[in-house]
Amino acid sequence: MIEPRILEVRTRILKKNDELARAMRDRFAAAGVLVVNMVSSPGTGKTALLRETLARLKARGVPVAAVVGDLETDNDARRLAESGAPVRQIMTHGLCHLEADMVERHLEGWDVDALHFLFIENVGNLVCPTSWDLGESVRAALLSVTEGEDKPLKYPGLFNTSDVAVITKVDLAGPCDFDRAAAHANILAVRPGMRIIEASVRSGAGVEDWIDYLLDRRRALTAPA
Amino acid sequence: MIEPRILEVRTRILKKNDELARAMRDRFAAAGVLVVNMVSSPGTGKTALLRETLARLKARGVPVAAVVGDLETDNDARRLAESGAPVRQIMTHGLCHLEADMVERHLEGWDVDALHFLFIENVGNLVCPTSWDLGESVRAALLSVTEGEDKPLKYPGLFNTSDVAVITKVDLAGPCDFDRAAAHANILAVRPGMRIIEASVRSGAGVEDWIDYLLDRRRALTAPA
Repeated sequence: MIEPRILEVRTRILKKNDELARAMRDRFAAAGVLVVNMVSSPGTGKTALLRETLARLKARGVPVAAVVGDLETDNDARRLAESGAPVRQIMTHGLCHLEADMVERHLEGWDVDALHFLFIENVGNLVCPTSWDLGESVRAALLSVTEGEDKPLKYPGLFNTSDVAVITKVDLAGPCDFDRAAAHANILAVRPGMRIIEASVRSGAGVEDWIDYLLDRRRALTAPA
Repeated sequence: MIEPRILEVRTRILKKNDELARAMRDRFAAAGVLVVNMVSSPGTGKTALLRETLARLKARGVPVAAVVGDLETDNDARRLAESGAPVRQIMTHGLCHLEADMVERHLEGWDVDALHFLFIENVGNLVCPTSWDLGESVRAALLSVTEGEDKPLKYPGLFNTSDVAVITKVDLAGPCDFDRAAAHANILAVRPGMRIIEASVRSGAGVEDWIDYLLDRRRALTAPA
């Protein structure tokens, strides 16, 4: 059980994180940088979707960059760098989530204000990243068709705090007997009205819907008030 | 970042958990109960494999029971109860892992000593459950073919502390372009000599290998020294 003392320390640390994240979000928004925090289970396909996203935005001349969190290995940063975009790995060495100061430190030396998009690929985990604001304007919860339709009900915290749900690997929907209606219903039960995008990097289906969503969100961020 | 004070409190709580877990393991072993802690990502198929395991062991007259952890919902307990075995749900309400005292409390009223197997299905998470000993004799790390072959390298803590790796959903290996040799090499890189079992509940492949492994482990537990 969580003891009162650890709760108290945790509350203080979360508060500090929230303050830093809020300052980062204000700074990014003023510079017109849309920050996107991508959260999912291990193996949902965050890296594959992000690599494709970076490549497609870059091909249109949109300035993009990414930081990617993992406990160990820089496999994901290497995979993402294939897109040609600037990418940095954050190794957490056992920590189950990213925190705002880790992101901030890994941006040092980059001309962040010149970016239109900064993507943060979180550690693969449906629980812990939920509590940690990274200064993002968009939190995307990814869910693959291989994982089962009830994940939003089991992990409501993530879906509740996210702006968009992306159902990935839809090319595998058939072999996995994926129940699309149940998945949508479960997402909407947790967060009514949530925007849901279905995509497959392998088949290409829906990836442009995701790109359009991101471009729309950035337009909203930079539109005169 | 983890502050020194939270580390200190965490160390104390982990130590208390370890002491309880050790006492539980001794008690279970003396009673001939093999306790199996199943850990994986959300969506790897822990519940499906466990339901099949409970049903097959029960059909042979082996006394079995299970407790299952989730943040919210008792979906998994209801799915597992279809096996006819006694099952209890542990709802963690946001906590990302099970702890020994949660397991102990949920066994109250059961004649645990009469069991041959007690299964614990952990919260879906590759990171946090690693640090929490639940008094198990066997820790099983599950990995599905849909998740990618590099998970053991990214989450070495789990594979390092586990006794057996179970690769699940092998009926989907083809559609997922699963690289079997790479997965085995990555598991063995993290834990040389680790026992690897490949299984699919849907096709039935390998499930008996898993059952045989469990029966062997229990025989070893109850064999006269």
